[in-house]
Amino acid sequence: MSDRKFEILETKERVIADNDVAAIEVRHMLKDKGVFMVNLMSSPGAGKTTTLLRTIAALKDKYRIGVMEADVDSDVDAAAVSATGTRVIQLHTGGSCHMDADMTKRGLEGMDIDDLDLIFLENVGNLVCPAEFDVGANLKVMILSVPEGDDKPLKYPLMFKVSDCLLINKIDTEPAFDFNFAVLRSRVLDLNPDMNIIRMSSLTGDGFDEWTEYLVRMIERQIRNGGNNEDH
Amino acid sequence: MSDRKFEILETKERVIADNDVAAIEVRHMLKDKGVFMVNLMSSPGAGKTTTLLRTIAALKDKYRIGVMEADVDSDVDAAAVSATGTRVIQLHTGGSCHMDADMTKRGLEGMDIDDLDLIFLENVGNLVCPAEFDVGANLKVMILSVPEGDDKPLKYPLMFKVSDCLLINKIDTEPAFDFNFAVLRSRVLDLNPDMNIIRMSSLTGDGFDEWTEYLVRMIERQIRNGGNNEDH
Repeated sequence: MSDRKFEILETKERVIADNDVAAIEVRHMLKDKGVFMVNLMSSPGAGKTTTLLRTIAALKDKYRIGVMEADVDSDVDAAAVSATGTRVIQLHTGGSCHMDADMTKRGLEGMDIDDLDLIFLENVGNLVCPAEFDVGANLKVMILSVPEGDDKPLKYPLMFKVSDCLLINKIDTEPAFDFNFAVLRSRVLDLNPDMNIIRMSSLTGDGFDEWTEYLVRMIERQIRNGGNNEDH
Repeated sequence: MSDRKFEILETKERVIADNDVAAIEVRHMLKDKGVFMVNLMSSPGAGKTTTLLRTIAALKDKYRIGVMEADVDSDVDAAAVSATGTRVIQLHTGGSCHMDADMTKRGLEGMDIDDLDLIFLENVGNLVCPAEFDVGANLKVMILSVPEGDDKPLKYPLMFKVSDCLLINKIDTEPAFDFNFAVLRSRVLDLNPDMNIIRMSSLTGDGFDEWTEYLVRMIERQIRNGGNNEDH
């Protein structure tokens, strides 16, 4: 892998006691640099990378985009993103099931963000741990894919409570699965009445515009607010 | 829920330093009682509960079966299992992303296992944390469903390394997904040459006999060995 075009950072050596302090530091760093960060979370295989690639393709002429790929191991996602010409850093969490704010800060320091507008953190595939750690992002987006089932809000409620936006992915596969969207929607809104729920397919592109339009609205609102991250 | 037919145990109050000591205690307990325990692990939505229900239906006349359902929250899976008449206990992990051996021991103590032959632990849906904790089971079975993708061994290698058997579930949905079984198989065997890989669908029953026959072989071998758990 000597021709690798991105860095790999081992993020798990240091541990800090207060994640919230580090999250505030991340927010300050993002504000200083004028960068908007999205924390993208889901189960393994829900479609984070495919969604990311399609989002980059849709917004790369509008914003200068960077990606932080967090994984326990491997760099396959970073390689896929890097192949699009997007700046990317691979973060290895050393066995940890999530990113915390300190790891995120070190990731941001490890890639040059001065000339970026928008950064995606692709978190470790997991519905439990990432929900528990504020990494200082401006927007928390979770993906639930149709094959996972409509009962997931019952079993992983915290993830649904803390997220701003829920992308229901792989809607092209609905005929193959017993997935009741109305039931899912009701379960999600019980946990989080403010959740913005978008049905889409990263494969076919169905519903994808609604997602990118929402994301652009959130970014522009942030810019109007002078980078203040007040509603998080 | 006053007519609930199973107990709910909050397992996360106590923490023990040495998981391995507790795992040995679990093994002794299982051997003393003549019970075989399966630790069932997967991502959220890969089909643990559906697989469990079909396995119970196939083996309930042969073995006396009990189930421990581990979840961060909810009791929907325990309710589904309980509805089949199977003895079940719901374990709440208090935010933890996995079961450890001490929680498992307390779960076994919380349900009367004296008259059981076979116990399933349905672990928290997660490909990271459960792989790191030996709970003292006789057999570690992981499920990977087709919609999750064939790249998962690259990203969650430990789970594939520690498992004895890999069930590839939802093979009925293969036409809807870009899933290369030969590539998956090669990636798995690179990590774990001894892995028993079975393709099946818990929904249609395709390939299911191969799984239950394998499980019966493992149980009968254990009985012949006098309950000694030597190869784990």
